[in-house]
Amino acid sequence: MTHARIEKILKNSDELDAVVFVNGTEPLLDMGFFYVTGLIEGLFEGSLAIIDSNGSLEVVTSLLEAESAKKGNFDITIFKSKAERKELIKEKLSKFKKIGINAQALIHKNYLELKELLPEIECVDVTDSVNKARMIKDDKEMETLREACKIASEAAEEIMDFFNDGVKEYEVAAELSYIMQKKGATGPSFDTISSFAKNTAEPHYTAGNAELKKGDFILLDFGAKYRLYCSDITRTYFFGKASDKQKDMYETVFKAQEVALDNIKPGVNGKDVHKAVSDFIEGTKFKGLFTHSTGHSIGLMVHDNVALTKEVDVNLEENMVFTVEPGIYIPGYGGVRIEEDVRVTKDGVEILTTATRELVEI
Amino acid sequence: MTHARIEKILKNSDELDAVVFVNGTEPLLDMGFFYVTGLIEGLFEGSLAIIDSNGSLEVVTSLLEAESAKKGNFDITIFKSKAERKELIKEKLSKFKKIGINAQALIHKNYLELKELLPEIECVDVTDSVNKARMIKDDKEMETLREACKIASEAAEEIMDFFNDGVKEYEVAAELSYIMQKKGATGPSFDTISSFAKNTAEPHYTAGNAELKKGDFILLDFGAKYRLYCSDITRTYFFGKASDKQKDMYETVFKAQEVALDNIKPGVNGKDVHKAVSDFIEGTKFKGLFTHSTGHSIGLMVHDNVALTKEVDVNLEENMVFTVEPGIYIPGYGGVRIEEDVRVTKDGVEILTTATRELVEI
Repeated sequence: MTHARIEKILKNSDELDAVVFVNGTEPLLDMGFFYVTGLIEGLFEGSLAIIDSNGSLEVVTSLLEAESAKKGNFDITIFKSKAERKELIKEKLSKFKKIGINAQALIHKNYLELKELLPEIECVDVTDSVNKARMIKDDKEMETLREACKIASEAAEEIMDFFNDGVKEYEVAAELSYIMQKKGATGPSFDTISSFAKNTAEPHYTAGNAELKKGDFILLDFGAKYRLYCSDITRTYFFGKASDKQKDMYETVFKAQEVALDNIKPGVNGKDVHKAVSDFIEGTKFKGLFTHSTGHSIGLMVHDNVALTKEVDVNLEENMVFTVEPGIYIPGYGGVRIEEDVRVTKDGVEILTTATRELVEI
Repeated sequence: MTHARIEKILKNSDELDAVVFVNGTEPLLDMGFFYVTGLIEGLFEGSLAIIDSNGSLEVVTSLLEAESAKKGNFDITIFKSKAERKELIKEKLSKFKKIGINAQALIHKNYLELKELLPEIECVDVTDSVNKARMIKDDKEMETLREACKIASEAAEEIMDFFNDGVKEYEVAAELSYIMQKKGATGPSFDTISSFAKNTAEPHYTAGNAELKKGDFILLDFGAKYRLYCSDITRTYFFGKASDKQKDMYETVFKAQEVALDNIKPGVNGKDVHKAVSDFIEGTKFKGLFTHSTGHSIGLMVHDNVALTKEVDVNLEENMVFTVEPGIYIPGYGGVRIEEDVRVTKDGVEILTTATRELVEI
């Protein structure tokens, strides 16, 4: 399984003797290490994944992770102390002249250590190759992502029973984590946004003490982390009957999302998807109120490399996975966002988040 | 408040024109950025905190974080695009010849960007100064840590009602998160360890599908994240009457913890605390079964810099905060660990985690 991942990275890394991932210390972990090793548990702090240009993979790790490491399909060398770790780094890497490093997730201190131990080694940043590989999900990744999306989708529907007068934003956030964890998630994939009423107009609000009351918008943006992979879903509900203005906002965002879903297919540029969505909203009475990107790639991180936005060129390919999350925000009044996770298929999209997208009045 | 933090860092950074924190992208955030700014919400991805050697602090951040940034006590400059951000980095830093960087949490790619924008600038790693400052908690930090410890301690006691025949490890982990989040935690401070029976003998197990049955050890190692600060507590309970052997293990670990608590005071070396604990256990029938360090510093990260172990020299000072967590592990049978978070006081320790430490049979 991980052999194909390694091949993808090496394909874009000509003239390198090896590609080396030096994992950091929690929470500064390099998900690239987990991508190439296929490991889905353990922290592997300070561990190295060494990909020889011949395609072989070796992991250097601590005694603490020895059992977890055995679940992988690669050679393992164990260190028992910091001194042994340094010796192993020298021993394993001294045969290489030019190595690739994943600079986007390598802690600078670990880079300084590499240069101290191996002053002659030349390091080349292979961030782009790693991201290019990680953008296209393989079957194993899709299986895991589907489960992460299923857990979040079920939570989005089950939470509906939890709303009543006076419930607080942070209580809803706690309940969502609880539901997802009972379904097998290790936890939320990021700090849950649970906002009511005018707080929904702040796209990066998290959750506070506000109490729910009739007429409120309810905006929930959350996801499940499942075997290291992240899902990310947003639903906007209405507590009581939605007003005409609320309905109008919802319908506009719903249609904007349809525009995105209709435009995503292999060969299309991500910025054109964003432009189509943005142009659509600009043509409505809510002009000027869509203030963020249309979506972002998702996988081992929530924001996994590129966004679908006007600043970024990204040629869509089959088996890329993106969020699609248009929104409209009226400061001091409220906001609506609807977000799906989708896989790019041969000729369109597969929607991975299955919770109802229709307007919900609770 | 943060002025004193800045002074502490500068005091150890002679001959530098500035100390610069370049924050990464979630989850690769530099908690040093949050330490010097005193910010307790927002992500501040790609933002800079620039400490001039004259003691002034300026934050360069995105439009998205403008509102959150205003809660701090420093000058703010906002960028609206990636290009503007690069321009601002050049503008703000070009007057400096030699700057300090927090290499332990600086993403190497951000370092490469600094060097590309400012080829002449000299960067000096100030990791040690930053850690030295962060080790000694100020009043504001202690207030936050006390609340994080209170939340975890209450959860450790409330969870007792949740145990019954057949309950699964991961359900207990979910319940703990739920209790803590309802008490105001943003979430757990790390992946909860919830283990039963022989799984308790693996110190780095997390939580699986095992079902609770009479006679089992129950080992829970978890913590609350509250306003960015972390607590970390372990309790070992017994489901049903503890056997003589289980009681013996518990009592030995309890006494080992007392040895640590009695030894911690200003002027003592952390490695001597560990030696006292280790020697004590080596003198019992459980010789050889205490396989990890006695504890670690805790604060904005769970493992915040140094450990109390034989490899590390650390001179204890007032207002340092450590975990104290001896354990005994019998492979295939079970393990006992008891963990407190403590503040070093003028002449001893203040225990911050208040859940009962006595043997509990459920």
